[in-house]
Amino acid sequence: MDSCIFCKIVAGQIPSSKVYEDDLVYAFNDINPLAPVHVLIIPKEHILASAADATEENAALIGHVFAVAAKLAKELGLDGGFRIVTNSGDDACQTVHHLHFHLLGGKKMSEDLA
Amino acid sequence: MDSCIFCKIVAGQIPSSKVYEDDLVYAFNDINPLAPVHVLIIPKEHILASAADATEENAALIGHVFAVAAKLAKELGLDGGFRIVTNSGDDACQTVHHLHFHLLGGKKMSEDLA
Repeated sequence: MDSCIFCKIVAGQIPSSKVYEDDLVYAFNDINPLAPVHVLIIPKEHILASAADATEENAALIGHVFAVAAKLAKELGLDGGFRIVTNSGDDACQTVHHLHFHLLGGKKMSEDLA
Repeated sequence: MDSCIFCKIVAGQIPSSKVYEDDLVYAFNDINPLAPVHVLIIPKEHILASAADATEENAALIGHVFAVAAKLAKELGLDGGFRIVTNSGDDACQTVHHLHFHLLGGKKMSEDLA
């Protein structure tokens, strides 16, 4: 996806504050953090625009994202807890159409998820 | 887990408004909905208290939750979008310690995820 900002970040064409990388996923600090810790975890490949297109074919990769998130939460000292969010479409204010998961923590967060 | 509310819901010992069920997961309407659609999707087995304990061993199951969520979002008419959230620990206001995913939609949601 030539025009995708997240694909350009993965390719190193746009700078990012990298937190983690492996063969499948890339994680970096959100440039507009909503909490003391706000990391975006994305599949390196532009396999899906959002979770709306998730199927059993993507299950292993999405599950891997959660294993990585749990590891990062520990490494980043989120002992008090954390939230993982993925937004799909306009109602959820999705802005970049490359599947991504927000890992948020480091403060007491709102009960209002919507 | 004898004392777990969600285990009791899966077992039918506590009533719930079921949305979906298969061998691995159970989905039901949240009793305190934060949006017009607010479904909780949970693994039937009490494998994890929260996403904090997710590992590669759980990857397939967590990935399956997302395939189910995408299917439910379509069936529930969330064409405008949806949000999937999982909370871990006090900072994220987790109240039931049985891994669960909130599927939220049916309205324009807040940009503030934290």
